[in-house]
Amino acid sequence: MDGRISRRQLLHAVGAAGGAAAVHAAATALGLLPPVARAGQLTLRPAGGRPRHVVIIGAGIAGLTAAYELRRAGHRCTVLEASHRAGGRNLTFRRGDVVDEVGARQVCEFDDHPDLYFNAGPARIPGSHTTLLRYCRELGVRLEIFVNDNRNAWVQDDAAFGGRPIRSREYMTDARGFVAELLAKAVHPQDLDARLDAGDQERLREFLRVYGDLDETLAYRGSDRAGYARGGMTSPGVRKTVRGFSELLDADFWHEYMHWGETMDQAAPMMQPVGGMDRIVDAFLGQVGDAVELRAVVREIRLGESGVEVAYADARGDVRSVRADYCLDSMPAQLVLGLRHNLPPRYVRALAAPTLSQNVKVAFQARRRFWEDEQIYGGISWTNQDITQIWYPPHGIHGDKGVVLGAYTFDDDRGLRLARMSPAERIETALAQGEKVHPGYRQHVEWGLSVAWSRMNHMLGCSTVWTGEAQGTHLPTLQAPAGRHYLVGDQVSYHPGWQEGAIHSAYHALQDIERREREARAAA
Amino acid sequence: MDGRISRRQLLHAVGAAGGAAAVHAAATALGLLPPVARAGQLTLRPAGGRPRHVVIIGAGIAGLTAAYELRRAGHRCTVLEASHRAGGRNLTFRRGDVVDEVGARQVCEFDDHPDLYFNAGPARIPGSHTTLLRYCRELGVRLEIFVNDNRNAWVQDDAAFGGRPIRSREYMTDARGFVAELLAKAVHPQDLDARLDAGDQERLREFLRVYGDLDETLAYRGSDRAGYARGGMTSPGVRKTVRGFSELLDADFWHEYMHWGETMDQAAPMMQPVGGMDRIVDAFLGQVGDAVELRAVVREIRLGESGVEVAYADARGDVRSVRADYCLDSMPAQLVLGLRHNLPPRYVRALAAPTLSQNVKVAFQARRRFWEDEQIYGGISWTNQDITQIWYPPHGIHGDKGVVLGAYTFDDDRGLRLARMSPAERIETALAQGEKVHPGYRQHVEWGLSVAWSRMNHMLGCSTVWTGEAQGTHLPTLQAPAGRHYLVGDQVSYHPGWQEGAIHSAYHALQDIERREREARAAA
Repeated sequence: MDGRISRRQLLHAVGAAGGAAAVHAAATALGLLPPVARAGQLTLRPAGGRPRHVVIIGAGIAGLTAAYELRRAGHRCTVLEASHRAGGRNLTFRRGDVVDEVGARQVCEFDDHPDLYFNAGPARIPGSHTTLLRYCRELGVRLEIFVNDNRNAWVQDDAAFGGRPIRSREYMTDARGFVAELLAKAVHPQDLDARLDAGDQERLREFLRVYGDLDETLAYRGSDRAGYARGGMTSPGVRKTVRGFSELLDADFWHEYMHWGETMDQAAPMMQPVGGMDRIVDAFLGQVGDAVELRAVVREIRLGESGVEVAYADARGDVRSVRADYCLDSMPAQLVLGLRHNLPPRYVRALAAPTLSQNVKVAFQARRRFWEDEQIYGGISWTNQDITQIWYPPHGIHGDKGVVLGAYTFDDDRGLRLARMSPAERIETALAQGEKVHPGYRQHVEWGLSVAWSRMNHMLGCSTVWTGEAQGTHLPTLQAPAGRHYLVGDQVSYHPGWQEGAIHSAYHALQDIERREREARAAA
Repeated sequence: MDGRISRRQLLHAVGAAGGAAAVHAAATALGLLPPVARAGQLTLRPAGGRPRHVVIIGAGIAGLTAAYELRRAGHRCTVLEASHRAGGRNLTFRRGDVVDEVGARQVCEFDDHPDLYFNAGPARIPGSHTTLLRYCRELGVRLEIFVNDNRNAWVQDDAAFGGRPIRSREYMTDARGFVAELLAKAVHPQDLDARLDAGDQERLREFLRVYGDLDETLAYRGSDRAGYARGGMTSPGVRKTVRGFSELLDADFWHEYMHWGETMDQAAPMMQPVGGMDRIVDAFLGQVGDAVELRAVVREIRLGESGVEVAYADARGDVRSVRADYCLDSMPAQLVLGLRHNLPPRYVRALAAPTLSQNVKVAFQARRRFWEDEQIYGGISWTNQDITQIWYPPHGIHGDKGVVLGAYTFDDDRGLRLARMSPAERIETALAQGEKVHPGYRQHVEWGLSVAWSRMNHMLGCSTVWTGEAQGTHLPTLQAPAGRHYLVGDQVSYHPGWQEGAIHSAYHALQDIERREREARAAA
């Protein structure tokens, strides 16, 4: 001991003087706690004298992340992308872009304007997706706020309100009001949990009163929250007519939509890259684009003792082969099964286990931002029709035109109905259904584009869907390597359908490769 | 009859064929329904050969709106503004700007950067404030999305959770879960309202299950909605520990904050002008700035038979007088009482009735956008301390610095405590209280600025507060003219504290003037 106090002693003294907050601050300042921003970040050990060659199948977010991190550590990558463009499902369409659906090729005819784009895959980033956000920061992808929930948007159900759209705020307010009133009156204090003392019970009743905006008698008689029918500025506000509770329950929005914004990945706020989600792809390509070979369709994966050999048809149709120390493969599991391969039987069984969701999106260029005339700025309207949702852009406010998402269908039955249609039929369907949400819809939109993910070339589906049982059995198998072949992509994460899951799948594989390399060095 | 069908007959036929939506579209196309965007817009009759001169006291939003509309119709305006700048409470501070508090003058020392500003008054615009939004569109004020609610932000209460901040999403999720569980178990079907049949009762229970994310036994055992404690990407997500219900009730957030985003003017989404709220002021000044005289402090208002005479001290202290056909006066009612005037007794009693809220805001320039390290992008943290709220900017994401709102205090007792302090004491208080929400807060911020509205020169308060009784008695008096003097501003609206209320107050006065002019012309 040299008379100096240890860091631990110092923190103890700080804590005595200033409490937990002071300890945290002091510990961070002393470098004992990492800054939050580094949490979860992958830092590969520099390759040094032992650079590896990794062949990456698929230039989606998982593949691009892997290539970027491997390059940064000094390794060599070859990225084989079957499509004519990189990004995978991170796919933004602008004027002239091709939608490469099997049997339903379309060309985007939006006007050439930076606000007019269509994110056919991921379109929003939650603040909790820290690794993706960190890449945005690191690679200079500008972000802006995305609107996921809008109380001025519409809910429309053929079974309620005469099929007419009503404002989300009306639906939400009346439904909350009735539920709160019924509960406040039907609750018997003696049946409440023993955890609650009399004060808590009173607070529970008060909670219901505030929840539903009830009056002093615990009755719901409408609420300002629904907006005024008229007045409220220079004359007293007149409340809107209250809907019937049964009718509110007939419309199924209480089951999912009312709680949508509470869910982990959908809670406000969310973000989007300025100019389109594929700005992220562009940013990665700026770093590793020279390693990406487009129109490279893999035919065969052959595991060897000290590497992997991948054969593919290049853009000219010539079959070529690449041999690497490792393979990171983001092909959809089912498509891997169609290759020639020597993958082990257990792995093959696991590849066959998950299915892919049948999501469909339809986008329209609108000649007039008609939703703004309806007091809607961003967000989503909901309908019980197949189109399910209509999204309004959060950017380009008060501009001349905008791209509205005319359908986002994530129920498989609905998605399959739309996917089976020709693009023209999908447009017509989305227009007809959209008319119920926005009377006059058809006259406002001038051009439509659809993407049925189940028909998208080289993908044939959207997010991976696991049954709980199959996931428990097979996902661990697919998360482990088969020889030197690693399946990656959101498909092997517990967060399918999100770019954050894809990034972490790449991290998972890269960390395992690093472990093997370390062990190999130690054994050498 | 000439064999053509009437519009009404046509609409009837359209309705039979296509339902209500088709009728609405057809009616709009036929010009029978106004386009939504025009609803509520004021269009003054052109002055023609009878231009009037209107003196407007106060260049806030009410005064500027009035000046703009009068000018557009061909009338003449003189706008007298007591302050050194226009805008009233629409007041944005940037580098070098002066906070003109009585006895607490401050100069803003933010860096000179377009993202670094502080909206001391209004800072967000709901999508339902259509007249303000229409001026933004008309005058080219660019808008972007503002974040009002953020589930990643913090709630902090000295009385709960050991005083430590917890994520809003944790608080909300656990509170909902417990309430739903208790209610689902305590509800007795026989006590439910007769409006509900057996199916509705089952749906009510199902509603509670979804509301609280309960399990099949209607028990709350934590929820993904709160975010994971760990995992969820390449390993299964592990739920966070559930808080105790009594502790959740101890923290008072269930009473107001949990329902904040449901209220009429606070529901998502909201918007802000790019670069600061006073872009709206600038836009109006671009149209009518030449009519505005700054540092013009009104001393006297004298009603005459055919006009109003207003005496004021100009920037040099010289007393000048302006005579006009009408006066629109947006001075706070209480300050009007301090003038020399010949206003009628009943009007004077009414002027004395309302009070002004004591809101205080404190802003800090942060050298690092530390909130983004905490996964917070925009939105508001809540605390039961005097600072009440901490706001994070929705713009400039991932930039170098940012301006964080370190306090927004709208409770009068709390506001008065802060207002009595010197600016330096307020900064120190906001830092100390902010430390409880963000350990290390003090090290992240480099410069602070505060505005106590009760001390702001020429205003001495923020929004008008009416008791219900006083409003019923006196507001109608103040909404009517006293001779040719009209009180305007949000103070005479049912929407105080919002620019939309101010605009409508101007409309209310201008429409009455137009009526009088029309009657005068008819009588002539």
